[in-house]
Amino acid sequence: MRIGVIGGGQLGRMLALAAHPLGVRCTVLDPRADCCASEVADVIEADFDDVAALRRLADRSSVLTFEFENVNVDALRSLTSVRISPPIDALSAAQDRLIEKTLFQSLGVDTPRFAPVDSIDDLRRAITEIGLPAVLKTRRMGYDGKGQRVIREPADIESAWRELGPAKLILEAFVPFDRELAIIAVRSHAGVIATYPLTQTKHVEGILSESTAPPPTISPETTAAAAQAVTAIAEKLEYVGVLALELFDCGGRLLANEFAPRVHNSGHWTIDGANCSQFENHVRAILDLPFGATTCRRPTAMLNLIGRTPPLGALADHPDLHVHLYGKSERPGRKVGHVTISADTHDALAGAVAPIRALVEKYTQR
Amino acid sequence: MRIGVIGGGQLGRMLALAAHPLGVRCTVLDPRADCCASEVADVIEADFDDVAALRRLADRSSVLTFEFENVNVDALRSLTSVRISPPIDALSAAQDRLIEKTLFQSLGVDTPRFAPVDSIDDLRRAITEIGLPAVLKTRRMGYDGKGQRVIREPADIESAWRELGPAKLILEAFVPFDRELAIIAVRSHAGVIATYPLTQTKHVEGILSESTAPPPTISPETTAAAAQAVTAIAEKLEYVGVLALELFDCGGRLLANEFAPRVHNSGHWTIDGANCSQFENHVRAILDLPFGATTCRRPTAMLNLIGRTPPLGALADHPDLHVHLYGKSERPGRKVGHVTISADTHDALAGAVAPIRALVEKYTQR
Repeated sequence: MRIGVIGGGQLGRMLALAAHPLGVRCTVLDPRADCCASEVADVIEADFDDVAALRRLADRSSVLTFEFENVNVDALRSLTSVRISPPIDALSAAQDRLIEKTLFQSLGVDTPRFAPVDSIDDLRRAITEIGLPAVLKTRRMGYDGKGQRVIREPADIESAWRELGPAKLILEAFVPFDRELAIIAVRSHAGVIATYPLTQTKHVEGILSESTAPPPTISPETTAAAAQAVTAIAEKLEYVGVLALELFDCGGRLLANEFAPRVHNSGHWTIDGANCSQFENHVRAILDLPFGATTCRRPTAMLNLIGRTPPLGALADHPDLHVHLYGKSERPGRKVGHVTISADTHDALAGAVAPIRALVEKYTQR
Repeated sequence: MRIGVIGGGQLGRMLALAAHPLGVRCTVLDPRADCCASEVADVIEADFDDVAALRRLADRSSVLTFEFENVNVDALRSLTSVRISPPIDALSAAQDRLIEKTLFQSLGVDTPRFAPVDSIDDLRRAITEIGLPAVLKTRRMGYDGKGQRVIREPADIESAWRELGPAKLILEAFVPFDRELAIIAVRSHAGVIATYPLTQTKHVEGILSESTAPPPTISPETTAAAAQAVTAIAEKLEYVGVLALELFDCGGRLLANEFAPRVHNSGHWTIDGANCSQFENHVRAILDLPFGATTCRRPTAMLNLIGRTPPLGALADHPDLHVHLYGKSERPGRKVGHVTISADTHDALAGAVAPIRALVEKYTQR
């Protein structure tokens, strides 16, 4: 069996690494022949919206999937001869923050207050309604904190509009959250859903920096609410594969921020910390194979390596640490790899992570 | 960093899969461009004893290693410009059952009684000394039970000699063992040794069929004796990398059968059952990186898929099972993959394994 993956970045690479033991090969479509998945997958070198290349990819694949959201939906819809998982409608919903939040709302999944903004008048009206501080965001093509601007006082309004307009925008209430959480779920063709334990995430300058699964403290109610939210979304979208839902935890009340219709950085801990990783379960789900267990083996932390990699000998110098490098050249702000560390208790984990975090931060270039 | 691997079979494939997350690429040397490691490694297509090809492999590698024993030692010795791990002397010792057993004996590691056999007269003398039943084996190039003949009564002597002679042979006492065990160890350049928990193995027609780690019952003394034996061998050989020692357990007394200077089928359970797999630790050791933990996460069984693979949907239909296919075409007697199953207790493991064993056996072609 062969999977076609649109995008040959680190997610495509880790999908291909998880697929090989199942006897499944991946072909990635990427503008760069030397993309980081190229070390473990075949590559069709083409732009993501090159319909002829997408057809070639479809022709050699049992199923198509994608490793990022900004895929051309119209191009995908033209590929009628191949199964595409996750479904195109899920991709489409995730591409537009307004559609996404409206979907959440329709399912009873709480979100920060939001309003569409197509003009500076809309923006002023939205601020009256939502209050300040608030976050103005592009509806489309945002990632890793890009395409966002916090508006703290009325004086920021015009500059925020000048910076992000006249694209279609959304204004969202600025949420004074206690922490950020994410939940990864996987859904089968037959509608079976499994969720991984919640992950507590920490972003720095909009980029995921560190995660811990399960969170050091978490109530059963919060876990259940997160699972219920991601399940409602997956069912509504008739989803197939792995999806991630990012949440703000505000004193135990969860507000959905966004979902990703793909394997996700907040689930990287599952490679070493769960019985079956998000990557393997995505492969299994889209090929209609039974899932592996989504249970957590031990408390596990994940630290992203951003911009630069510490020397491997120093980085790997902990028996319960695993290194995952992406085969990328180093560049400020770029995710070049991640590490996971596991321990028997959260206290032991915190102790183990501290020196590794210090080493990683020393080399980080944002 | 790049590793050169002599041999592109399933062990080379799994080494390459373990190397990628460390940012390490493998080049395998194999007579077949489409060898099963080729999906995840670069290939130099050449015979194993092609010295010019071995030089090309050395030129592009930080270190050379091998995935099987029958490598031409003289060809390796001619490669003076590259580090080779495990050391050539270890390979050389493992290639000859007489040298191997003599080494064990010199280190106080018990073995079945043995005697060299270079003629039919030697054979008769050896039988007088060792008794019957006994096993006549070729000293070199044996694997998976090949090159062996059990001699049960004097009438078998001539036919055994006709079949295996006039190669250099060894006669070994036939050991009425209670069970077979194996221990995997890894040793660093600096002489640090770590051992994995013992594995109980079961062979059918000379081919490993199933293993369980740790064994359902095992005394601390037996574990210590096995660790001591493999440590003595590794230290004597100034070993670097992963090695496996196969043992007969005779009422608690261990007799060393053979060692493999490489990653080994009896250690395949470590991919899913140990904190760091034998493949990753071999890569780490030969690149002089610190080891990952060799501890066992949960009792884990491994079943080889021989000759044929059951349908993937049925095979993968257990949440704690992982499938490892090798990308090989099916052929009777060929190892085409393996599965691992983990559980919290040995009882639960036995219950989980039973139906999977039945499925695997249904498709096995020996």
